[in-house]
Amino acid sequence: MTERFSFTLHGTDGAARRGALHTVRGDVETPAFMPVGTAATVKAMLPESVAATGAQIILGNTYHLMLRPGAERVAALGGLHRFMDWHGPILTDSGGFQVMSLAKLRKLDERGVTFQSHLDGSSHSLTPERSMEIQRLLGANIVMAFDECTRFPVEKREAAESMRLSMRWARRSRDGFDAGAEHASRNALFGIVQGSVFEDLRRESAAALADIGFEGYAVGGLAVGEGRETMFEVLDFTTPLLPADRPRYLMGVGKPSDLVGAVMRGIDMFDCVLPTRSGRTGQAFTRRGTVNLNNARHVDDSRPLDEGCACPACSRFSRAYLAHLTRAGEILGAMLLTWHNLQYYQDLMAGMRDAIGRGALEAFAAGFHAGQAEGDIPPL
Amino acid sequence: MTERFSFTLHGTDGAARRGALHTVRGDVETPAFMPVGTAATVKAMLPESVAATGAQIILGNTYHLMLRPGAERVAALGGLHRFMDWHGPILTDSGGFQVMSLAKLRKLDERGVTFQSHLDGSSHSLTPERSMEIQRLLGANIVMAFDECTRFPVEKREAAESMRLSMRWARRSRDGFDAGAEHASRNALFGIVQGSVFEDLRRESAAALADIGFEGYAVGGLAVGEGRETMFEVLDFTTPLLPADRPRYLMGVGKPSDLVGAVMRGIDMFDCVLPTRSGRTGQAFTRRGTVNLNNARHVDDSRPLDEGCACPACSRFSRAYLAHLTRAGEILGAMLLTWHNLQYYQDLMAGMRDAIGRGALEAFAAGFHAGQAEGDIPPL
Repeated sequence: MTERFSFTLHGTDGAARRGALHTVRGDVETPAFMPVGTAATVKAMLPESVAATGAQIILGNTYHLMLRPGAERVAALGGLHRFMDWHGPILTDSGGFQVMSLAKLRKLDERGVTFQSHLDGSSHSLTPERSMEIQRLLGANIVMAFDECTRFPVEKREAAESMRLSMRWARRSRDGFDAGAEHASRNALFGIVQGSVFEDLRRESAAALADIGFEGYAVGGLAVGEGRETMFEVLDFTTPLLPADRPRYLMGVGKPSDLVGAVMRGIDMFDCVLPTRSGRTGQAFTRRGTVNLNNARHVDDSRPLDEGCACPACSRFSRAYLAHLTRAGEILGAMLLTWHNLQYYQDLMAGMRDAIGRGALEAFAAGFHAGQAEGDIPPL
Repeated sequence: MTERFSFTLHGTDGAARRGALHTVRGDVETPAFMPVGTAATVKAMLPESVAATGAQIILGNTYHLMLRPGAERVAALGGLHRFMDWHGPILTDSGGFQVMSLAKLRKLDERGVTFQSHLDGSSHSLTPERSMEIQRLLGANIVMAFDECTRFPVEKREAAESMRLSMRWARRSRDGFDAGAEHASRNALFGIVQGSVFEDLRRESAAALADIGFEGYAVGGLAVGEGRETMFEVLDFTTPLLPADRPRYLMGVGKPSDLVGAVMRGIDMFDCVLPTRSGRTGQAFTRRGTVNLNNARHVDDSRPLDEGCACPACSRFSRAYLAHLTRAGEILGAMLLTWHNLQYYQDLMAGMRDAIGRGALEAFAAGFHAGQAEGDIPPL
């Protein structure tokens, strides 16, 4: 265990990077996928099951946790790690994104955002300073700067104004984070590049953040409806703007093919609700594309969901059983498919890390795309 | 592993008995509580977690399984044990009780029951012969005779007619079970005593069943609204009517205090949805009575739910966390509280088995009742 946050870059393969985050809660091999534990639980998973998939870091949501159970309460109970019995590193978001997507009666000004809770209508406010305080109270090992996620599509002038507000908030986030001296000395603050799809705005944002200085850099404002091609174009011109000796995090992304494409463009960290949320609706990600367990073709199928997967859902149960659980709305169906999806995501990341280490990411990606294109095994 | 079903009576303490079922899938120490796995899953539990609580046998529901996924389908997939990855013994009910409580447009005659599925309205019928066939297709280790659960309250004449129909069906169940020669040679068929609250009818029913001969005897038609005092009175005069060298099963019971009272009256086996269903609504059974995790008093409470319990919910999480999960409707809350409740039930049964072995069940029961009466720990 290290005494403070750092990042080691082990090697590269094209634009792709292999490295490790060192945190006071343990190391994280990168590129890494972080399962989302919104409300102090990765939904339908025990913490040791999350770890068993190979996940080394999880994400918590400031917006949800500040409303319920409340940051001060979590702190009084010993912090988020102890509260949810997850003892590896935790990254928390700043709350900014979810205030704008979930809360009611939002009002945004230079100071921050006031809003009403989507749970009970109670009034709250979030500022860079309060977001830093909440994330410190939770005990986050990686804290995200408080920013405004620019809507899409957006006029360039509005994107510029929004980005510059986020840069002023990034400065205040840095100051607020550093004010928690003991926590700051051991943990990390990441800045978030904004600027929508505009290269000059992304350049201005990246320069502003580098000027402030952060332990890591996130690319925000993507996966908001711009489409994969545009997202990749933005990454193509944005990741080269980021300091090479710091980790790079693409927020809220994504599908397996998004992860592969973004790793090839130099991204080190990801989070997304897709594997967990899909697991609760009978959707599985596999080496041969997505499989819908609600489909009648599976009900007599004695074969495993994904032959290449060692998770409990695939190694001990049939598609027929998983389809039965899904159709019956059984909680165990959500448990098993969530586990599988997280296992698949972690296996994909491990495969990419290994390939980068061998300088073989192109071949790995080709194999990945061939499997996805081949599609699911034919019905029995 | 034995090659066929048998029962060993190890000893008694008053009317209470300590023994073991020997099945081709392993032994079951009695008195035993069987978690309910209605639709081929003990809800919100992985099979190994069920086993980790100490459960040695589970129950499956013929009515649910015949409708979805279907008995022939389960058989084609290798049987219920393999389908749900539970390799210990399984008892299946006959479907009779749930046809009467769940199905629509029921029609009962001498032959059996025709009904419409509560899932999709499709038409089905259940007879003693078909119930035996379904339970054989599922691969049950303990098969229950097909009977009519007499409604409560009921006139004595109607109770007598209903009981005598069940006794004719018990004969047909025996014949139908024995017709599956290979399955029958390795597994057990239990008869079910009916007769409502009438001692002479219970006596007539027990004699009719003993005349046919079964590997075990259940007491049916209780826990249907008659109240605990009446249930215990019926047990007081019914269990002495049952062959002492065969296991005795009280169907669908019950609360922890019901289990203690019934064990003291000579019952060896129980099943009930209460621990699993309660776990999904934030209700916990503990050594100090029931605890409602929805109650606001728990949200800041760093103490374990039940200090005497070694389950994951109690050993690794606080009441505050369990209350948070319950209030947030998180699946992990259902998972942890189900696990705890099943652990509590198994611990209670283990405590009673141990006490019977020491001739100390009276003292054990007094301690149990004192803890329940004391009630939950005071708020912090």
